[in-house]
Amino acid sequence: MDILPATLGKLIEELGALPGVGPRTAERYAFHLLKRNPHTAQSIAGSLQQLHEKIEYCPVTFTLIEKGQEVSPLYSDPKRDKTVVAVVEEPLDVVAIEKTGKYKGTYHVLGGALSPIDGIGPEKLRIQELIDRIQKDAVQEVIIATNASVEGESTALFLQKNLENIDVTITRLARGLPAGIDLEYADQITLTRALEGRQRL
Amino acid sequence: MDILPATLGKLIEELGALPGVGPRTAERYAFHLLKRNPHTAQSIAGSLQQLHEKIEYCPVTFTLIEKGQEVSPLYSDPKRDKTVVAVVEEPLDVVAIEKTGKYKGTYHVLGGALSPIDGIGPEKLRIQELIDRIQKDAVQEVIIATNASVEGESTALFLQKNLENIDVTITRLARGLPAGIDLEYADQITLTRALEGRQRL
Repeated sequence: MDILPATLGKLIEELGALPGVGPRTAERYAFHLLKRNPHTAQSIAGSLQQLHEKIEYCPVTFTLIEKGQEVSPLYSDPKRDKTVVAVVEEPLDVVAIEKTGKYKGTYHVLGGALSPIDGIGPEKLRIQELIDRIQKDAVQEVIIATNASVEGESTALFLQKNLENIDVTITRLARGLPAGIDLEYADQITLTRALEGRQRL
Repeated sequence: MDILPATLGKLIEELGALPGVGPRTAERYAFHLLKRNPHTAQSIAGSLQQLHEKIEYCPVTFTLIEKGQEVSPLYSDPKRDKTVVAVVEEPLDVVAIEKTGKYKGTYHVLGGALSPIDGIGPEKLRIQELIDRIQKDAVQEVIIATNASVEGESTALFLQKNLENIDVTITRLARGLPAGIDLEYADQITLTRALEGRQRL
């Protein structure tokens, strides 16, 4: 005998598949929605239904765009410097960089990072598209902005090798101490990189 | 200019209204769903649409039932002892008690706890329904299983006063040390209650 009505149990199971959501958190979400006005659940349902229908990849930058837009406004905007391209793994990384408000170049989303264990080789990443664009847009600087994970680091190395015969400056996001951290709490790798990348004052 | 497509921005805002979900977690959920097969998002959308349509309150216990069921299986099951009633605040509390696998009585969901600051007075809780049921089912024991919060405690006190003229044993969930905790980490209230409720070995 099930404790919960089947409809609710199904929703809890589905929400439990979201990243970092366990069964208890999924229960809290489902009960919260059930307590709220039905409009809330209906509205989320509507957004979820349109999610894949209405969103597609920008054919130039591979960031996300609303269906009907030709290219991402992050590219078409005349204020963005098309000769500078930040290469990121996922569309979410674009949001993180945009939030700094300090970047005026454009983006190229690889669509992941190299990960042999997950079967993600170079052919699954949008590397040729990047090379084509460097030539087409006469790109001056490629900023490799992959994650600071093992996969992100190998992807960065791989890109560096693949772009070395092209006449373009390749840079990488600095590694070092994150803001607000006490030295004693920094891990060894972070501290090693902070030492290696030390800057003259 | 928006960084994200409007459809995605809307979903992120809606998911950000779930309990304990901030904008960054909402972004992670939305991007996760976007990366997955469209079927996942569609399936959650379907469950959300049916949530309020298909679920209603059991007219006896006020736990949740699937539309079409007359009463909760937690009540109709002949193995459940109808003379013992655990009184809880919310339907989710029923799940918590059922998971222990140690309770064979039935439930009564109050629909909240007394909270003058939120405008929840006794008239908003299902207290009369409980009194009616005690008489109808010849209930022998009412286990007050409200939360160990200020609101839960005042609700328990209020219930105790309202039931004192009825011929029924009233008990409460024990207060004391949670499993696995070190004495030195227990807060003063918990430790005081554990002392007050100490048991002879």
